[in-house]
Amino acid sequence: MNTKIKQTFLPFKGFILDCDGVLWRGDKPIAGAREAVKALKAAGKVVVFVTNNASLSRNGYLEKMRRMGFDVSLGDIYCSSYVTARVLRRIRVSRVYVVGEEGLVEELEREGIELTDPQHAECLVVGIDRHLTYQKLADALKCLNHGALFVATNEDPTLPVEDGVLPGAGAIVAALERASGRKPDVVIGKPSSTMFEMVLEEKRLDPSKTLVVGDRIDTDIAGAKRLGIAAALVLSGSTTLDELSSSPLKPDIVLASLSEILEEVSA
Amino acid sequence: MNTKIKQTFLPFKGFILDCDGVLWRGDKPIAGAREAVKALKAAGKVVVFVTNNASLSRNGYLEKMRRMGFDVSLGDIYCSSYVTARVLRRIRVSRVYVVGEEGLVEELEREGIELTDPQHAECLVVGIDRHLTYQKLADALKCLNHGALFVATNEDPTLPVEDGVLPGAGAIVAALERASGRKPDVVIGKPSSTMFEMVLEEKRLDPSKTLVVGDRIDTDIAGAKRLGIAAALVLSGSTTLDELSSSPLKPDIVLASLSEILEEVSA
Repeated sequence: MNTKIKQTFLPFKGFILDCDGVLWRGDKPIAGAREAVKALKAAGKVVVFVTNNASLSRNGYLEKMRRMGFDVSLGDIYCSSYVTARVLRRIRVSRVYVVGEEGLVEELEREGIELTDPQHAECLVVGIDRHLTYQKLADALKCLNHGALFVATNEDPTLPVEDGVLPGAGAIVAALERASGRKPDVVIGKPSSTMFEMVLEEKRLDPSKTLVVGDRIDTDIAGAKRLGIAAALVLSGSTTLDELSSSPLKPDIVLASLSEILEEVSA
Repeated sequence: MNTKIKQTFLPFKGFILDCDGVLWRGDKPIAGAREAVKALKAAGKVVVFVTNNASLSRNGYLEKMRRMGFDVSLGDIYCSSYVTARVLRRIRVSRVYVVGEEGLVEELEREGIELTDPQHAECLVVGIDRHLTYQKLADALKCLNHGALFVATNEDPTLPVEDGVLPGAGAIVAALERASGRKPDVVIGKPSSTMFEMVLEEKRLDPSKTLVVGDRIDTDIAGAKRLGIAAALVLSGSTTLDELSSSPLKPDIVLASLSEILEEVSA
């Protein structure tokens, strides 16, 4: 099976794969992605899945990925909901107010973090929230104005969906930045190093033998570069060839899609 | 009655008064503000009321001000809801999608502007909206992504209320800026010149004989300065003496409150 992976990719031991735009778009797997993951695993590579999207918990992603036919275990998934909860636990945050969806709430509760009202929150956690209301924004502002720690799961401006884009967690963060005059104290998602560092440490990966594969220059490629990790950009997601050409930051490798790591599969 | 106004203020023919923090806080008139307005009018001054807040229509403000006991006529009120509708009519915008409250909708409809869905809107109008939902943000983003004109009634980061602040129109604008990568094409409220220019023109006021009175340096004072109008800052609103000291932009006059324009009334 080892022979199915192109020569270029054989030296890498670890593959950190971004999800949306690399493995799937909306609820549809990208052609050849499942086969590529399977071949990497068969070749003994460590394959880890990372995503800035905090709408689902680790278990939520496991379910979604298995439903799509990906070969994946719970321990290989690092979504920002999970990483946020882990980080907050580590820095001993115990009472938070959340602007976010169920997946984020689930991970915070799993780490024993109490969800509370704005008055009692020592920390505000902001992620994508497709049930956002003005009241939630007002409550979040209250947290910030009384000095709560400002934590963002990620700062993605948009959330890609089948027929376009929706406002992302970054849009909600921007509203609160403008209202409070504050910037987030902690950002968990890429291009912040937090997620990649947790993966490297827990999977015992050598950065020099690891490849990040993502579809966004400003998050995936920028985040990998900060840690000196090789980065491959796939054009199956949100970055066009034109955008790549005009970007000052360049990936080490450009692929039409993840399936290009395989010998026999044409893009 | 003329004698009741302090000497300093006699040379001015027109007085453009900001409302929140100058005339009232929440629903409570500021002490002496009604008397000051009355004395200015009795002395033959042109008194005009301006506000960035687009939650009410001109009629809405008339009602609010009369309820509080202010001597005011409809034609003296320039709120951003009214000015926005006038400007859109002038530049021949006919179909808009609105993120905003009833007062804004009322003014747009009064100008014969059609409220429509994101697909058909040639213009997105954003004002304070205390019933904001994620769906409205998503719809507004759709407008921006298909090239609609981006109009903000104002960019105030917060809306002062009795017990603190709420997210202002500027916070909603910021979310859409982040998601769309666009800035508003037109901003109506102060410090933009639009409102003051409309007042000067329609009230036939000479800028050199006009005084703007406001409680915010970044909007009222900055907006007046752009047009070379004298500006008085009142400390009865959102600016503290400390903030004034550290501001590079200084008003021409500083008053504890509007009542200080009168001889006999102590602040």
